[in-house]
Amino acid sequence: MTIRIAIVGWGNLGRGVAQALAKTADMMLVAVFTRRDPAHITGPDGVPVLPMEALDTWRGRVDVLALCGGSKTDLPTQTPQLAAHFNVVDSFDTHAKIPQHFAAVDTAARDGGRLALISAGWDPGLFSLQRALGEAIVPDGASYTFWGRGVSQGHSDALRRIPGVADAVQYTVPDSAALAAVRSGNRPDITATTGHKRQCFVVLEAGADAEAVQETIVTMPDYFADYETDVQFISAEELAQDHGGMPHGGVVVRSGHTDAASAHHQLIEYRLALDSNPEFTASVLTAYARAVARLAASGLTGAVTVFDIPPGLLSPRTPEELRAGLL
Amino acid sequence: MTIRIAIVGWGNLGRGVAQALAKTADMMLVAVFTRRDPAHITGPDGVPVLPMEALDTWRGRVDVLALCGGSKTDLPTQTPQLAAHFNVVDSFDTHAKIPQHFAAVDTAARDGGRLALISAGWDPGLFSLQRALGEAIVPDGASYTFWGRGVSQGHSDALRRIPGVADAVQYTVPDSAALAAVRSGNRPDITATTGHKRQCFVVLEAGADAEAVQETIVTMPDYFADYETDVQFISAEELAQDHGGMPHGGVVVRSGHTDAASAHHQLIEYRLALDSNPEFTASVLTAYARAVARLAASGLTGAVTVFDIPPGLLSPRTPEELRAGLL
Repeated sequence: MTIRIAIVGWGNLGRGVAQALAKTADMMLVAVFTRRDPAHITGPDGVPVLPMEALDTWRGRVDVLALCGGSKTDLPTQTPQLAAHFNVVDSFDTHAKIPQHFAAVDTAARDGGRLALISAGWDPGLFSLQRALGEAIVPDGASYTFWGRGVSQGHSDALRRIPGVADAVQYTVPDSAALAAVRSGNRPDITATTGHKRQCFVVLEAGADAEAVQETIVTMPDYFADYETDVQFISAEELAQDHGGMPHGGVVVRSGHTDAASAHHQLIEYRLALDSNPEFTASVLTAYARAVARLAASGLTGAVTVFDIPPGLLSPRTPEELRAGLL
Repeated sequence: MTIRIAIVGWGNLGRGVAQALAKTADMMLVAVFTRRDPAHITGPDGVPVLPMEALDTWRGRVDVLALCGGSKTDLPTQTPQLAAHFNVVDSFDTHAKIPQHFAAVDTAARDGGRLALISAGWDPGLFSLQRALGEAIVPDGASYTFWGRGVSQGHSDALRRIPGVADAVQYTVPDSAALAAVRSGNRPDITATTGHKRQCFVVLEAGADAEAVQETIVTMPDYFADYETDVQFISAEELAQDHGGMPHGGVVVRSGHTDAASAHHQLIEYRLALDSNPEFTASVLTAYARAVARLAASGLTGAVTVFDIPPGLLSPRTPEELRAGLL
């Protein structure tokens, strides 16, 4: 039976889910729901684009909603609301607020007899899984997460708010010396700040003072002041041509020892190099939607995370096929 | 409640499990069982070393048996036999025979009301997980597994059986050009043979014909004939000094595309660099023993694999701690 998915929110992430679903044989997109005027949106061929209010009439016609709104304002209210009536997956990524989001979604989903998986993506998501696996398998060790090289929307937005900046893109870049130190088998003391550099490509408004803009950037608290920050001024054309993509990625490392004398070093490294951050996040969301559909069919309700999902349920293969082909 | 583990088989793997357990706070080693004469074995401090026959009297006094025998002759009979009376984990690694092993263990465990996890280790095991995850998340892609650089016991044994060879160690080494091609974003056609080289360090018996030995090695079917094979003759002292360890590792790569036009490349790489293959395998076995104890306590019976285990159960942390600290 084909798993019926509806997308809620038609931005980069929603479009990514539509593309991910098109690459599966066991799942299909049945509808797109949006808060904008559906008349102004072109959805995938043959798929209705509907206003949010229409969702009420779709109960029972969709197996899982893929919630593709933002973590700041959309998901904190949307996920609990919709989890009361539908099985859902979201990619809520405000790490510090995950416990309270989980609690709100869990209550709503339990009361409604639905299953809701939160925070599926690559971080949180796949990186979280690798952090948990690494720590469980090599308890005498240290964990490291590096992000990038990739575009940070938050930091790019911070640049764009500076007076005199017409447009900008910021890349988060792992510090190569820090990464090498982590891979060496030592357990260096590396923080997010010492482990990363920041690269800024900035288009100035006509007549703007480059030196003043540069100073504003490198002294901006939280975003840049504590980091090694490189600022390059380029033209709008260069920005459009060379920095229009949304690449990202990163590395999770577990480094530790397994013998009594701590002489035998064991290194686990998980690395992502992504041309498209939203499409990859959408692909993770889609695979977890498959698992949610299966677990919901077996009667599970409430909120869950990637830690709760048997990995085989992410695959379209049967357990027999998985054991014979991939084990 | 501390999880009580007993080790069955006191070789490199069994000793690795004992060391892994010593690095946990929630699990303890309660006994070691061996087919050899326990009087001749020194186990960990304070832990009884007992003959296999004594196992009968240990039902109810141990939560999970860590089966540390070999896949060739021990586990095919031992795992089903013991799964009838105990929850067990094994590291059965004969890939082609996993379906039949699973079936035998499943029947025994179900009949006995026990839970048995087979094929926990890094391949099969963690690499299997990564292969399944990669394929599920990026279905439009190709998967690759590289092994090494590491010691292959099977290939080392094959060298030692050659007339004129006193001792030998064989390393399996990923071909760096093949690995680079896989990482590039193309989907090259790479097999186990074209993806690996073989390095042989050989100690000759006095008077042996080096040229004849070399010829026997590089033309040996299955083991070496199809591979780029390098043979170096060294002294027994050099072998003992430089090649006495059991390093291993490898790389699992998923390379594919997530957009309709297949223009956005996404790369997932999982890499292990292990100073001690048996200790790392033992650490994986130990983490999965924790999950088996928990799932058995919840009433699950039969045979399972890494595909069936919610990853959070591998961790000593509670679900709340996992969500707050690692998600």
